Amino acid sequence: VSASSAKKSFKPKEPCKHIVLYYHDTLFNGTDVANATSAAATNATNLGDFKFGMLVVFDDPMTKDNHLLSSPVARAQGFYFYDMKSTYTAWFAFTLIFNSTEHKGTLNIMGADLMTLETRDFSVVGGTGDFFMARGIATIHTDTFQGDYYFRLKMDIKLYECY
Amino acid sequence: VSASSAKKSFKPKEPCKHIVLYYHDTLFNGTDVANATSAAATNATNLGDFKFGMLVVFDDPMTKDNHLLSSPVARAQGFYFYDMKSTYTAWFAFTLIFNSTEHKGTLNIMGADLMTLETRDFSVVGGTGDFFMARGIATIHTDTFQGDYYFRLKMDIKLYECY
Amino acid sequence: VSASSAKKSFKPKEPCKHIVLYYHDTLFNGTDVANATSAAATNATNLGDFKFGMLVVFDDPMTKDNHLLSSPVARAQGFYFYDMKSTYTAWFAFTLIFNSTEHKGTLNIMGADLMTLETRDFSVVGGTGDFFMARGIATIHTDTFQGDYYFRLKMDIKLYECY
Repeated sequence: VSASSAKKSFKPKEPCKHIVLYYHDTLFNGTDVANATSAAATNATNLGDFKFGMLVVFDDPMTKDNHLLSSPVARAQGFYFYDMKSTYTAWFAFTLIFNSTEHKGTLNIMGADLMTLETRDFSVVGGTGDFFMARGIATIHTDTFQGDYYFRLKMDIKLYECY
Repeated sequence: VSASSAKKSFKPKEPCKHIVLYYHDTLFNGTDVANATSAAATNATNLGDFKFGMLVVFDDPMTKDNHLLSSPVARAQGFYFYDMKSTYTAWFAFTLIFNSTEHKGTLNIMGADLMTLETRDFSVVGGTGDFFMARGIATIHTDTFQGDYYFRLKMDIKLYECY
Repeated sequence: VSASSAKKSFKPKEPCKHIVLYYHDTLFNGTDVANATSAAATNATNLGDFKFGMLVVFDDPMTKDNHLLSSPVARAQGFYFYDMKSTYTAWFAFTLIFNSTEHKGTLNIMGADLMTLETRDFSVVGGTGDFFMARGIATIHTDTFQGDYYFRLKMDIKLYECY
């Protein structure tokens, strides 16, 4: 089978699908089981003062607007860890899980979160269900953060390979 | 070089390669070094009662039938962690390593394991050797589990991009 | 849009981009904050004698030649963990971050590091910036190691999908 018979569509720089969602991470403080949606699985090391090595597992809600209490349209399940000794940066890998009338399926995402930049890009490396075999870019922007307890990312997801 | 000269073949929904394997995970209990093939690298957190944050590293045998003691045709090396506070779910990333007369090479796989579903899909995000540059979907089904100690997954792997 | 209108180029086995870099990992020993670029986030388990389950987070320099003190042309941010009970092997996932006049962008990489082999292949599963949507193979060779403290990998990165 050669490429000429393919049904896959791609046109670089013009996404075949575009989704904007907000990611809300509420870190467990040891007591707020009801509200927390993530928890540190490892302690920070002593390599610098920016939590190097602290790994956080999350099951975070994704909403269409930037309100934490809006009804989630997806979940983000995965992890991040802090990985610089001189500033805060993190590395993420996670799955967006959609289970609504609008979308059913998953997107698998990974990349470096260089928090000091206004925006940074993760890779969408695969998809399932409605997002069968998708690839693309998720552009991240820190919408807000409240110390250790809560932060919110805007995720602008553009798929460039859709089946 | 335009796509018209490509040798890559793809025909959505018709896999170019199909492999069914069983994954056997035997968790280290602290003493059974001879039998165990995985071990918890972190303890569960107190966020809920479903091992949230427990991260398990594995080097698990993959067999063609569902017998633990059948001769492995591949190894699965990677990790999973539990990531919900209200039920058991996990997130996986791993490499299938083939080194037999039938297949030599690796498949790299990641995704969310929503254990409450009859089946769930991981993304095959890359491959090497005989699976050079492959992509596809691995559909997972829990074949059995025995408490904390052992569980077995059926993995139905369909590659949709082959070179 | 069919594949015939695509601008994506691929020609299997002939890379569209080729980059060779050296990865330097200097593990934190608890005191050398100035020199260390990685740190163990978890302790090894007791499953065998090869550090099974020890997970290391890194922010490692990448250089064009094999000298640790050469000016880095990229950073590798991510993690590895040891995952066999009978020998040393590891599993890696990381992002190469380029921010030079030559390259700006990232490559996302994952795979099994079967250290006993002369070379082994990781998958390049995505890219951003100058490496927008890239895929390929990173072939790894252990250039040297000095006990627990330092090891160096040659990474021969060939991209086979470029936009």
